[in-house]
Amino acid sequence: MSLSESLRWVMGELEESRGAAIIGMDGIVVEEQKKEGELDLQALGAEFSSLLRSVGKATESVNLGGVTELVTCAEQSLVLLRRVTTDYFLVLVIRSDGNLGKGRFLLRRAGAQLKTEL
Amino acid sequence: MSLSESLRWVMGELEESRGAAIIGMDGIVVEEQKKEGELDLQALGAEFSSLLRSVGKATESVNLGGVTELVTCAEQSLVLLRRVTTDYFLVLVIRSDGNLGKGRFLLRRAGAQLKTEL
Repeated sequence: MSLSESLRWVMGELEESRGAAIIGMDGIVVEEQKKEGELDLQALGAEFSSLLRSVGKATESVNLGGVTELVTCAEQSLVLLRRVTTDYFLVLVIRSDGNLGKGRFLLRRAGAQLKTEL
Repeated sequence: MSLSESLRWVMGELEESRGAAIIGMDGIVVEEQKKEGELDLQALGAEFSSLLRSVGKATESVNLGGVTELVTCAEQSLVLLRRVTTDYFLVLVIRSDGNLGKGRFLLRRAGAQLKTEL
């Protein structure tokens, strides 16, 4: 499955999804899919790549190891991040009333597939 | 229920919990309970209060609103954060194989109770 096909698969499986992207740890979006024009995945990628690094430093400093996933529940949406390799992570933005458990499951599946592509 | 009773209730309801705390947005621990001496909730509070502010700035900058919850899956533990008021948040650290759904549910219940106390 190509990068864009993986993202389309995730979005298709979860009706409440707003957008999904594969983002480098440098904050640059490699591939993105979205249902709504107003969702700025480029800006989100830049913000959250930096946060993911900060969270990783924090968990390592308190002896909890590296970060594999980060889930942010904001007022307007849930933002799910999953590390795929040391250089890339997946993002899925879903409506705030969306199914968080299914979102995590889909990102885990997509991440396992993408590991060989990235 | 007092602050320490609320934390003990959360810990008692979830066998996989390692520690819980009520922390100010200035990073200072107001109350803590833990099962293991090695878990440094003071250090964790300082690190995550700063992260919670950064995540809130990030979600607001991409028009997703303020942050109500943050879940970090690290290699050694899951760290669940829940905003209780503008000044305080709850932290629950559970083993990485622990029940994330139950942890979130317990924090939501405890948060609702604590809102009137803080």
